[in-house]
Amino acid sequence: MEKTEVEEQTKDEGQVVTPWQVAAKDSGKIDYDKLIDQFGCQRLDQFLIDRVHRLTSRPPHVFLRRGVFFAHRDFNDILDAYERGEKFYLYTGRGPSSESLHLGHLIPFMFTKYLQDAFKVPLVIQLTDDEKCMWKNLSVEECERLARENAKDIIACGFDITRTFIFSDFDYVGGAFYKNMVRVAKCVTYNKAVGIFGFTGEDHIGKVSFPPVQAVPSFPSSFPHLFSGKDNLRCLIPCAIDQDPYFRMTRDVAPRIGYNKPALIESSFFPALQGETGKMSASDPNSAIYVTDSVTDITNKINRYAFSGGQDSKAKQILYGANLEVDIPIKYLNFFLEDDEELEHIKKEYGSGRMLTGQVKERLIKVLTELVERHRRARAAVTDEMVDAFMAVRPLPNMFN
Amino acid sequence: MEKTEVEEQTKDEGQVVTPWQVAAKDSGKIDYDKLIDQFGCQRLDQFLIDRVHRLTSRPPHVFLRRGVFFAHRDFNDILDAYERGEKFYLYTGRGPSSESLHLGHLIPFMFTKYLQDAFKVPLVIQLTDDEKCMWKNLSVEECERLARENAKDIIACGFDITRTFIFSDFDYVGGAFYKNMVRVAKCVTYNKAVGIFGFTGEDHIGKVSFPPVQAVPSFPSSFPHLFSGKDNLRCLIPCAIDQDPYFRMTRDVAPRIGYNKPALIESSFFPALQGETGKMSASDPNSAIYVTDSVTDITNKINRYAFSGGQDSKAKQILYGANLEVDIPIKYLNFFLEDDEELEHIKKEYGSGRMLTGQVKERLIKVLTELVERHRRARAAVTDEMVDAFMAVRPLPNMFN
Repeated sequence: MEKTEVEEQTKDEGQVVTPWQVAAKDSGKIDYDKLIDQFGCQRLDQFLIDRVHRLTSRPPHVFLRRGVFFAHRDFNDILDAYERGEKFYLYTGRGPSSESLHLGHLIPFMFTKYLQDAFKVPLVIQLTDDEKCMWKNLSVEECERLARENAKDIIACGFDITRTFIFSDFDYVGGAFYKNMVRVAKCVTYNKAVGIFGFTGEDHIGKVSFPPVQAVPSFPSSFPHLFSGKDNLRCLIPCAIDQDPYFRMTRDVAPRIGYNKPALIESSFFPALQGETGKMSASDPNSAIYVTDSVTDITNKINRYAFSGGQDSKAKQILYGANLEVDIPIKYLNFFLEDDEELEHIKKEYGSGRMLTGQVKERLIKVLTELVERHRRARAAVTDEMVDAFMAVRPLPNMFN
Repeated sequence: MEKTEVEEQTKDEGQVVTPWQVAAKDSGKIDYDKLIDQFGCQRLDQFLIDRVHRLTSRPPHVFLRRGVFFAHRDFNDILDAYERGEKFYLYTGRGPSSESLHLGHLIPFMFTKYLQDAFKVPLVIQLTDDEKCMWKNLSVEECERLARENAKDIIACGFDITRTFIFSDFDYVGGAFYKNMVRVAKCVTYNKAVGIFGFTGEDHIGKVSFPPVQAVPSFPSSFPHLFSGKDNLRCLIPCAIDQDPYFRMTRDVAPRIGYNKPALIESSFFPALQGETGKMSASDPNSAIYVTDSVTDITNKINRYAFSGGQDSKAKQILYGANLEVDIPIKYLNFFLEDDEELEHIKKEYGSGRMLTGQVKERLIKVLTELVERHRRARAAVTDEMVDAFMAVRPLPNMFN
């Protein structure tokens, strides 16, 4: 299976999931089971979750318990090695295309922070300002500015500065990192890149050049100031599953250039307010809750746009109950309401008609308001000096303890 | 014409000239007149040569007088600006694929040194170790080593360290240089790159990514340590005409990203010992004189392999004289025998049969032995510290005086 991993289809039976497009079949829901088959990754099962619990001596994150991170590649190998006393490092990233993040953007960072704290491992965070400059009609300068703004939101998630290196490609590409880009690029034919990413002849060559840029943070030698002499350190990448094509390519190339394959732990998409047919889009402000939204914004958006599985009238709701399968407030609570008992209670009451849509939305508004308020306070405390400090090319003093 | 410059054909009527292949039609001679039409560049005429003489108050270089540098793009604009008191900078380079250079490799550097001395302008020299790593089956480390070895040969040509910055891509790509690579890459579709460079789907994406790397030294903002605040400084590129495709692309892109088009001054190829059907190849040691060849090597190669236009026997030679059009010793003397009068004398005597092949070859062996001996002495004096000094990222103290 390993040999043909990269050959797996990105598009299958009408379901399209690439780093640039997420579209369910017939505008229905993304079929995540099918995606696991389609991409050739593995399901993150209860056995692995229990193992994380045991190895870290702390309760698994809500995103693990509730199946938000639902797929992986070689996560078991990472845990095997960890159990033997071998550490790893984390790599995640963001394409800084918008001023402010929405809740969907926070998910990989919230989860990565949990992994960093639980396993006590170093973390590199790539801001692909070059990617956004090439895919969007944005100038180099604007993308650099957005990268720094987004870095503030990322830092606000609570990363440990003694274990975390944040870099932007425009800042950091060069030297050992660039050499690895060249090593990777040598191993990927244009035809193969077309097969993985769906490029056309009218796409510019910047797009064709980009996949190695996102690939090489998977290799410790790309960061000589961090991992000098640690070429065999394994890498674990928490990300949304739309990034899988990059890492299928990376895993295909890695052994050919003498490197370890990175392991992955992959999340489903955070659904849009309007329903679970794709992922939240930063370009439609009414499809998403932003970390900059006010209480009023959040209240209005949830009340007005959050797709409800409840019945049209109170009488009907009491009679038939809500369809939880399509209900966005329940889905959002599934991500962000940490109390398992309360969530179960709400689902039971709402599903059976003893709770009304308005009540569930009210609870969600409170949860999101608290989350956003907490983020806003944390972000306000992030100074430019802190951004400089996280982005400084430096050894990390507290990498593995 | 400017708009469609980039669309000019690289391959035409059986004559193929790209950065990776030089092949004349039906294995005959390269037709340089046709190449000028084919590429859409201009002939370097006597008027321009006289202008160089006047502006620099020194005799034009033998490579100008004898038509070795025979084509250009916008060289007249560079001279116009120079006449108004505006300086420019020079950019040339080398792909370091072999340990030692042959005579053909020296030509652009000898000519560039003349231009630097005559116009008193700064110079950047790019060593495309990344290119050679991607095109040849060479490791990153081997290409870096070759780049430094080749830098010694280049320094031995006598460049002024106060005006010259030598860099290798593996060392220098990043920052402002990388930002310009992204700006260029955004403007070139894959289809266009295929039209210019002839890539196929089975070529790896490293090749597709490379043209912007060779393009951006044409823009002063790629060198903030040299040209900060001098974004309008014009660039003049002395190179062999097989590099024209890179700079057709660069000139097409430049105005779209707010930069000046680089000007070019382009040479014909130094012919192989076996005759003028292509350019010297570093991979066939008997096709070329190397700067590391001993007197014995040179003597043997010239006597054994240098294609002669002389007659088979002394008697016939006296009767018919030599065919100078195909005679390699005469062609080599045309490049390297500086004395115009002596060259004319030899051509007259040899062409009319009063001089024999052996005598001409003897004169050539002396000229080349002196050249190679001079180069060897100069190279032996180049220390690793000097290489470091030329390659240090630093301001140039003596750029424009």
